[in-house]
Amino acid sequence: MKSEFSLNRRSILKNSIVSGACLSFLSKTSVANTKKIAKGSTVLFQGDSITDAGRDRRAENRANHSGMLGRGYPHAIAGQILSKLPQGKLKIYNRGISGNKVPDLAARWEKDCLNLKPNILSILIGVNDIWHKLNGNYKGTVQDYEMQYSELIKRTKEKLPNTLIIICEPFVLRCGAINDAWFPDFDERRAASKKVSKKFETLFVPFQKMFDDAVASGTEPEYWAGDGVHPSVAGHALMANTWINIVSNYFDL
Amino acid sequence: MKSEFSLNRRSILKNSIVSGACLSFLSKTSVANTKKIAKGSTVLFQGDSITDAGRDRRAENRANHSGMLGRGYPHAIAGQILSKLPQGKLKIYNRGISGNKVPDLAARWEKDCLNLKPNILSILIGVNDIWHKLNGNYKGTVQDYEMQYSELIKRTKEKLPNTLIIICEPFVLRCGAINDAWFPDFDERRAASKKVSKKFETLFVPFQKMFDDAVASGTEPEYWAGDGVHPSVAGHALMANTWINIVSNYFDL
Repeated sequence: MKSEFSLNRRSILKNSIVSGACLSFLSKTSVANTKKIAKGSTVLFQGDSITDAGRDRRAENRANHSGMLGRGYPHAIAGQILSKLPQGKLKIYNRGISGNKVPDLAARWEKDCLNLKPNILSILIGVNDIWHKLNGNYKGTVQDYEMQYSELIKRTKEKLPNTLIIICEPFVLRCGAINDAWFPDFDERRAASKKVSKKFETLFVPFQKMFDDAVASGTEPEYWAGDGVHPSVAGHALMANTWINIVSNYFDL
Repeated sequence: MKSEFSLNRRSILKNSIVSGACLSFLSKTSVANTKKIAKGSTVLFQGDSITDAGRDRRAENRANHSGMLGRGYPHAIAGQILSKLPQGKLKIYNRGISGNKVPDLAARWEKDCLNLKPNILSILIGVNDIWHKLNGNYKGTVQDYEMQYSELIKRTKEKLPNTLIIICEPFVLRCGAINDAWFPDFDERRAASKKVSKKFETLFVPFQKMFDDAVASGTEPEYWAGDGVHPSVAGHALMANTWINIVSNYFDL
């Protein structure tokens, strides 16, 4: 086994692939030195169905509640962080909603993000912005996606200047609902998410590269996401470990 | 951070606390050298509500399905194993049922265990055997628990002689529903589970020691299980990592 999971703060420095992908464009002054996550911090996961993952809406105000967290990567991340850092007294929330695009996040941002005052905000959004367009139910272009996403992050940074923001790269697997019609549009949207991350000096989690590497290692894409969009149990766990490898470097508990 | 998660086969040997607790009474011939888990193996989790953890009964025949696995330690274990060992082609099932005692497992063992022909069978059972007795709804003694549990494992080994069996120690946290009336009866049942494990040379996962150590490190017991019985997200993740540290040594994928 080459892959190891660890919340050791130095692990990110040893994990050259991940750190190279996510930290190369970050100003150490703006993120690494100023946004350490202190005890009692609030962690918020935002996004679409991949984040939602069957969460119990009725429990959405109950920090760290199992049903509230859903069955996806937010739950897996919460489990690892809460079990390994019990002294952290972290409050973790999932407010992903199936079917959401960037404008849907914007419409509920006051209630479902700003009012929660997260110290860590992780966002994974973009697959519906193209999927709904391909289905004829939406007209947003790549430029719209980038502009709307930029506006969302700008608004967030104005209200929550000390929040550590994590932009997760949208991804697809080449199977299920994913066909040639998705490209190159989808790749351009991935690039747009990275541009927004760079512009606002957020952390960036390269999920597409992670899944591409997993498939290149000899696993069928369906193993990670049967329909090409929604991860399997294995896919969510892979996402969780990658996310933790990147973000745990910023914990100061 | 002292604690690290790894599926490296040598990690168990380095983790002296866990390995000391679980391997001290094992015959290396009977377990370590003969029961390597091969590709395509079936893994089955059996038990009560702690294992059940809200699983979707309708999906119970769908290996590795997210809803089928519930939201507890079986899901967390499946995520880590399936993501780190994609070449293993493992089929993981959860058949825990809330409220079950050992005789309840025995009554459905043919359908919910033997017929599945698991290569790895993990059992966590015992808390209802005492809880229902304290509530006046059951009369089974410690001796009944040990005898019934022995009979269940004997029956399993006769039908599935090559299956790696893992007996998980029943545990409680000193909070919520747990009061002095539980002792020393509960400690005697824990000891009985270990005796059964030793008698049939199974693996043993010392969950009580794990939670005792976590509380001794300065965390409130409620952090790990609000009612003293059902683990939190953090508690389930801690269980998953301990289980993996012990069992991954027997993977040969």
